[in-house]
Amino acid sequence: MTYCLAIKVKDGLVFASDSRTSAGVDYVSVYSKMHTFQLTEGRVFVLLSAGNLATSQAVVNSLRRDLADPEAPISLNSVHFPFDAAHYIGEISVRVQNEHPEAMKKSGVNVEASFILGGQIGLGEHEIYLIYPQGNYISTSDETPYLQVGETKYGKPILDRIVTPQTSLEDAARCALVSEDSTMRSNISVGPPLELLIYRADSLSIDTRLLLKPQSPLYKKLQKSWNEGLRHVFDRLPRFDWE
Amino acid sequence: MTYCLAIKVKDGLVFASDSRTSAGVDYVSVYSKMHTFQLTEGRVFVLLSAGNLATSQAVVNSLRRDLADPEAPISLNSVHFPFDAAHYIGEISVRVQNEHPEAMKKSGVNVEASFILGGQIGLGEHEIYLIYPQGNYISTSDETPYLQVGETKYGKPILDRIVTPQTSLEDAARCALVSEDSTMRSNISVGPPLELLIYRADSLSIDTRLLLKPQSPLYKKLQKSWNEGLRHVFDRLPRFDWE
Repeated sequence: MTYCLAIKVKDGLVFASDSRTSAGVDYVSVYSKMHTFQLTEGRVFVLLSAGNLATSQAVVNSLRRDLADPEAPISLNSVHFPFDAAHYIGEISVRVQNEHPEAMKKSGVNVEASFILGGQIGLGEHEIYLIYPQGNYISTSDETPYLQVGETKYGKPILDRIVTPQTSLEDAARCALVSEDSTMRSNISVGPPLELLIYRADSLSIDTRLLLKPQSPLYKKLQKSWNEGLRHVFDRLPRFDWE
Repeated sequence: MTYCLAIKVKDGLVFASDSRTSAGVDYVSVYSKMHTFQLTEGRVFVLLSAGNLATSQAVVNSLRRDLADPEAPISLNSVHFPFDAAHYIGEISVRVQNEHPEAMKKSGVNVEASFILGGQIGLGEHEIYLIYPQGNYISTSDETPYLQVGETKYGKPILDRIVTPQTSLEDAARCALVSEDSTMRSNISVGPPLELLIYRADSLSIDTRLLLKPQSPLYKKLQKSWNEGLRHVFDRLPRFDWE
């Protein structure tokens, strides 16, 4: 499993991902699930991936091949809108999943993958899209300014309580880290290091990318502060009548 | 869906359940999922149910029929240990699920149900058991002093952070309510009123049973206090280097 999320606020975008990849519980490894495309044509894209690793890698390879090929009919450099990019990635994903259909059917392996794509093209809106394994995709709304893929449930309550489009980029980033941390505590298939990326609207370049290992001072401080803070709040909840 | 949980601490047991029952999104109703068996023979049992409502009701009916029948080969009054009660309920559940097999197969309806059974028999240990739809069951450990059925993921992180066997009964009860509340905010298939039951070890009687509607003063105070507290802790998390 995996847990990736992206948040869209007025001031920009935040992306976060864990790095645990497993083929069953007896083959666990570390792969980055965060792929950046800092393009020369006044555009930037970030792609988070969840699901089958071979499918995810093949999709990213395909995106890079099209970028390197001046004859490619479409690429991240030529799409006009972020949703065009989402559509294009969805098509590649479905094509990749349908390779070797007989062998895959025989093996019973699930080759599905989901993606979150975010970015901005020129002076257009900064946006994020969730691309389903079936190739279709959704974006955010003011009421739901975040998207998640993978093991999404453990880390959802804190997003629902904190994030709105007016949240600052730094607060959104902290909330994404807390959401990842809560998920890692409850689900062994989501694991460190965490990656965090902050994109400031209209900058057309990646502002900050952090790799947070369990021993990173920032990550340890954040965990400690959140844990102790929760405990403090919990200890001050209203008493029952009989207490 | 449903979200029920039970916590075992040194001082006793806590049970919590939501009350939303749905047959699809277009038929939603309210049913208690908490069934108590305050028996005369120095024993008490509480049963929480999740899953198919007809199966849950049939299992509870069957338990009550056996209690009323002095000739019944087994009943909650005659079992020697709580795990015997879990085994007995598992058998009833499997039998009920296997009624009308042809009609059920044709309809594609899922008749599975899961249960949490807790209680105490005489001077034995107070215990809780999770009974799977297949009839088998597990209990708690010192490291995992709680059991959940239904929509379990949203409310798990707070349990993992707070509950240990040394937690007081009242704190365990507050934690159960926070866990239910977090789940209700993120998942529309879990809904009010909440039911909360506290059993004090060795009392052999039910200490407290509360029905908490959204407008209940205790529930509103708890929600407000938790929400504002979380916000306060969040606002005091460590800053990034550049802030």
